[in-house]
Amino acid sequence: MSNSYGKLFKITTFGESHGPAVGVIIDGCPAGLEISVEEIQHALDRRRPGQSDITTPRKEEDKVTILSGIFEGKTTGTPITLVVNNKDQHSHDYSHIQHAYRPSHADYTYTAKYGTRDYRGGGRSSARETVARVAAGALAMKLLQNYGISVNAFVSQVGKVKLRKHYSKLDFSKIDANKVRCPDGKIAARMIGVVEEARDNLDTIGGVVSCVIQGVPAGLGEPVFDKLHAELGKAMLSINAVKGFEYGSGFEGVSMHGSEHNDQFYTDNEGNIKTRTNHSGGIQGGISNGQDIYFNVAFKPVATILQPQQTINDAGEDITLQGKGRHDPCVLPRAVPIVDAMAALVIADFLLRQKVNKV
Amino acid sequence: MSNSYGKLFKITTFGESHGPAVGVIIDGCPAGLEISVEEIQHALDRRRPGQSDITTPRKEEDKVTILSGIFEGKTTGTPITLVVNNKDQHSHDYSHIQHAYRPSHADYTYTAKYGTRDYRGGGRSSARETVARVAAGALAMKLLQNYGISVNAFVSQVGKVKLRKHYSKLDFSKIDANKVRCPDGKIAARMIGVVEEARDNLDTIGGVVSCVIQGVPAGLGEPVFDKLHAELGKAMLSINAVKGFEYGSGFEGVSMHGSEHNDQFYTDNEGNIKTRTNHSGGIQGGISNGQDIYFNVAFKPVATILQPQQTINDAGEDITLQGKGRHDPCVLPRAVPIVDAMAALVIADFLLRQKVNKV
Amino acid sequence: MSNSYGKLFKITTFGESHGPAVGVIIDGCPAGLEISVEEIQHALDRRRPGQSDITTPRKEEDKVTILSGIFEGKTTGTPITLVVNNKDQHSHDYSHIQHAYRPSHADYTYTAKYGTRDYRGGGRSSARETVARVAAGALAMKLLQNYGISVNAFVSQVGKVKLRKHYSKLDFSKIDANKVRCPDGKIAARMIGVVEEARDNLDTIGGVVSCVIQGVPAGLGEPVFDKLHAELGKAMLSINAVKGFEYGSGFEGVSMHGSEHNDQFYTDNEGNIKTRTNHSGGIQGGISNGQDIYFNVAFKPVATILQPQQTINDAGEDITLQGKGRHDPCVLPRAVPIVDAMAALVIADFLLRQKVNKV
Amino acid sequence: MSNSYGKLFKITTFGESHGPAVGVIIDGCPAGLEISVEEIQHALDRRRPGQSDITTPRKEEDKVTILSGIFEGKTTGTPITLVVNNKDQHSHDYSHIQHAYRPSHADYTYTAKYGTRDYRGGGRSSARETVARVAAGALAMKLLQNYGISVNAFVSQVGKVKLRKHYSKLDFSKIDANKVRCPDGKIAARMIGVVEEARDNLDTIGGVVSCVIQGVPAGLGEPVFDKLHAELGKAMLSINAVKGFEYGSGFEGVSMHGSEHNDQFYTDNEGNIKTRTNHSGGIQGGISNGQDIYFNVAFKPVATILQPQQTINDAGEDITLQGKGRHDPCVLPRAVPIVDAMAALVIADFLLRQKVNKV
Repeated sequence: MSNSYGKLFKITTFGESHGPAVGVIIDGCPAGLEISVEEIQHALDRRRPGQSDITTPRKEEDKVTILSGIFEGKTTGTPITLVVNNKDQHSHDYSHIQHAYRPSHADYTYTAKYGTRDYRGGGRSSARETVARVAAGALAMKLLQNYGISVNAFVSQVGKVKLRKHYSKLDFSKIDANKVRCPDGKIAARMIGVVEEARDNLDTIGGVVSCVIQGVPAGLGEPVFDKLHAELGKAMLSINAVKGFEYGSGFEGVSMHGSEHNDQFYTDNEGNIKTRTNHSGGIQGGISNGQDIYFNVAFKPVATILQPQQTINDAGEDITLQGKGRHDPCVLPRAVPIVDAMAALVIADFLLRQKVNKV
Repeated sequence: MSNSYGKLFKITTFGESHGPAVGVIIDGCPAGLEISVEEIQHALDRRRPGQSDITTPRKEEDKVTILSGIFEGKTTGTPITLVVNNKDQHSHDYSHIQHAYRPSHADYTYTAKYGTRDYRGGGRSSARETVARVAAGALAMKLLQNYGISVNAFVSQVGKVKLRKHYSKLDFSKIDANKVRCPDGKIAARMIGVVEEARDNLDTIGGVVSCVIQGVPAGLGEPVFDKLHAELGKAMLSINAVKGFEYGSGFEGVSMHGSEHNDQFYTDNEGNIKTRTNHSGGIQGGISNGQDIYFNVAFKPVATILQPQQTINDAGEDITLQGKGRHDPCVLPRAVPIVDAMAALVIADFLLRQKVNKV
Repeated sequence: MSNSYGKLFKITTFGESHGPAVGVIIDGCPAGLEISVEEIQHALDRRRPGQSDITTPRKEEDKVTILSGIFEGKTTGTPITLVVNNKDQHSHDYSHIQHAYRPSHADYTYTAKYGTRDYRGGGRSSARETVARVAAGALAMKLLQNYGISVNAFVSQVGKVKLRKHYSKLDFSKIDANKVRCPDGKIAARMIGVVEEARDNLDTIGGVVSCVIQGVPAGLGEPVFDKLHAELGKAMLSINAVKGFEYGSGFEGVSMHGSEHNDQFYTDNEGNIKTRTNHSGGIQGGISNGQDIYFNVAFKPVATILQPQQTINDAGEDITLQGKGRHDPCVLPRAVPIVDAMAALVIADFLLRQKVNKV
Repeated sequence: MSNSYGKLFKITTFGESHGPAVGVIIDGCPAGLEISVEEIQHALDRRRPGQSDITTPRKEEDKVTILSGIFEGKTTGTPITLVVNNKDQHSHDYSHIQHAYRPSHADYTYTAKYGTRDYRGGGRSSARETVARVAAGALAMKLLQNYGISVNAFVSQVGKVKLRKHYSKLDFSKIDANKVRCPDGKIAARMIGVVEEARDNLDTIGGVVSCVIQGVPAGLGEPVFDKLHAELGKAMLSINAVKGFEYGSGFEGVSMHGSEHNDQFYTDNEGNIKTRTNHSGGIQGGISNGQDIYFNVAFKPVATILQPQQTINDAGEDITLQGKGRHDPCVLPRAVPIVDAMAALVIADFLLRQKVNKV
């Protein structure tokens, strides 16, 4: 009962990594939104395995099919169902992991929870589930475009290599210009080196995705529990491998004084209300103030490594697990479209919610 | 439509800082839980203003009244309503802030959202709303005690003064032993110095609350969107002034390799499944694994400072705002019981949800 | 977890019949709605006990207090809390019912459900809970008035005395003109006779409330599960003592042929789309078509009778229960404002939901 | 945002009548429930078109595919997705209805609601959506069987032909013994005659489905808004063509006195608490009391008739509509498995909800 996200622009995802298909129902997308299957496919192509030599070399085309809710190129107001078939789901051999509790995977916790698990790969806990989120996110993103809102996620750290430039100095059109999805070419090259090193050592490495949302009007987000940043935080923390979230001044803001941290309001020449600084990250009291929203998302290193590891099996006995298969040495480049999708879904939901807040 | 939290153990809070009262309805607390008004009051007393000279000197006793749902010392399964009257809500003068947009407050964003706002203090955006959360949290905490689960939040950083000891070396019974609620007396003294300095400079300072939850059985938390840490993150980010959340290895984990970060499973002498390290923070795939859950919450400095500040009024004109009144120079000590309460509410909800996951 | 109703215009009620108070939180009422405490009180006065000699002679003034969410005569967008204190809740003697399972009351089922119950009167199962609904309904009704929508419930049957006139021939301004709330004076007199006879026999009698909603624009209601009539049905069936619901042609429509039942569309002189008949009751496919919405609600006779009855106690032993106190011989007159309130709440919710259905 | 039903055993349906497929996600079915694709198919076969000469002669096999959530013959706790492809969805000609507002169909109301509609048949408003409900209901029914609960819906009225026997005198194993699904063969024959007459007149006829649920333990259903009968009512009223719902004594109960209507409790020889009569229909205060639950559901005549009808098109112009195609002259026989499914879904949801009501 936790496979849905969003209150008005609501998605429900389904599917296991090695079952027949993964997919999503979007219930609440407004009628009349123009969308093509190509737009959805484009978002999925950014997430697809096999894009480069620093991601998994698995070849899956992840072709999306529309089962309902879109008619003659427009949404109809009825539930939109998008499905992506899994490839070759019958051809795998799971004997090496069927009884293993892989370190820092969800094998043990799912078994503890349900008394059983689908041991074919990660089953439902696999990041393959995010295919569904990215597909749904394409519709949310289209809605945001109608409102002049942009979302730009990018890789800002890999291992210890960190992009320190302020986002205002970055060219977001360059995010996809390199295989690590960092818009600064020089830093990107260093990040790629770190990933290659990890890959060549049969190891993995973590990093940070940053995201900037621009064009959000003042007034989005809801008081008290569904604060804009609280929903962004939940949405990001729900992505596989995420360990932390901060927005605006974030963890660095804790050592600042109020006199330094407060964002002064002023009225610009066009009569717009703005703030001179933006430690608030575009959000005050959980509600957007019209300034840029920005946040960081921490990803741990991928748990699947190709080295032997000590662990136990489901009988509690010590075993040595030998990783095999084709896996990502670093999840960051492929996480970028997932962060984009979840951010778009959060904002789309609040756009709809704001429609009912005033008489 | 965002004043509720929790799916099964569900709370709905109400009330403005300077209206007649604040309060909460708890809908979903199981019948038969023994609870006394004193237990609820005790939790509120930890949050109450006027506790020490490093918090606001306002004197409010915050006395709780039970309006429904508890009969003869036990919950009945019907909604539990707890109300705390506000003191002297008619005696204030709001003329200095009625038309001001205070920097880094929610005056502007509420007005943008609703076209109006309750200008008496922070209205609904005030941290006074957390009275309701702490009262509800007392019931959740009581439920957790029945399951042998403990929650211990404490102040781990104020400004740049940071508690670096691992939590296993701390004595949680000492949390309330000093006025800053850091269980290490020596660090606490330095933190107090930082707060006093800020206070004497008519300024404010931020910090970090850390929290450790022990005794959680394996299997709590729900896959995909309602991951245990995603709900903890949302709950914490919904607290006033919070800017970031991380659990387990958190932001530091991003520069680790998988071979270093993975937590190996083993079976201990009593046959319990454990991990040798706990970078996972007790949560794998969004579900508890039986190890300690721990996380950090970043609080920005309080926005209300007693220095003059430049800002605008609701006509868009520049004004100088002179803070007055009695405010907290540092929110951290009083934030501790709020973090406790929200953590308890999250775990209580998942305890109930786990009851329906298996045939 | 079932004390809330509505998706966007959401109410949560609380309180036991003999506890300190009953009340409601309305979360989702749009900001900027003008409302006075007198308007809310007026709705409650229609439901109040002691109105006439055919309702309970208990005297309770049911005075409402606003605890939050309304400021300077307008809703602010934050949760609205309305409370009505119970009178003299400590003065009663419950010894005759404390251990009894009263026939056709909820004493036994609450005990089976929760393992305990609040034995002071009906506790949470008492129709006193509807005070909260009527108070909340006053806000919904005010919102409907802004849209030109009217709701008129009235008594159309008591025992076997039935009002057979079509509603278009009734004068709704006469509903409150007599104590049984039937707008036809002649039938009303006969109904009153039936109630008086039951009362004098220490017995009770059932009846039907009919309701007509006019001015609803085409397009309200949601497909599939939240059909307009399905929500109306649930709302009505949730009222104490209700046994049935039908709309439009209702149960009589089952013996009609399609050629007779179908409502032909036509365009009137002003270019409005209308239907020549209205067997659909203003709803097609679960969505309003702009014609009048009308429905019937069946109420059983009140379970509390002043005659001795055979039943058992909570030890399973046979007992004779002697009813006492001051009770309604017929719930119908006081049910009218409750039906009004619930109908208004349903329509208000759909008005808000419709705001997000189109790009 | 209304395509979901249930709080814990939650279904979300999708699909248009002439789109690629219809289907359902079940989120919240407990892990470990044994279920085969044949069991689901069996339920669908009872609803399938082309079963007899008194239903539509369209031949659709409605073969179900499991996309997720069931592994090695058991539910895993993850979302279960069931899909049924539509047949030949590209081969139809919709020119006669593309611009028509068919009488008593949802063509006009959907257009008013969304500004657009899928004009291929009924689109989302078609009763084809109930394929998804029946598939999901098969899982709910399996869960109920584990608790010893049975659900038996049957046709009790067609036109004016009414089955007057008390349900205790019926043999539920005979429900499928004839093509109208009335367990009394003699009445069934008369009902079939009525349907055949309507069919031969190019007309349609309505009727009533009754349903009996046995073996429900005391304590199911939730107080106040989610009363057991209120949820049953909503579930039934959400089925296409339903106009009314009553349970227990229903509309007939309104003319009874309390002394006659009240159900006396007694303790039977095995120590079970029972009632001597069951006007309550097994539900008191919205909660099951362990007696049989029974209710009636009124279905209007099918709106699609093969006679010419006067109506308008989407330009508001008068047109004559000539029905064509193969349609049901009476929806009742095929409605029986839909009523079964919805009843099972309601009870399954309450079974899960009851698990969290006590400490």
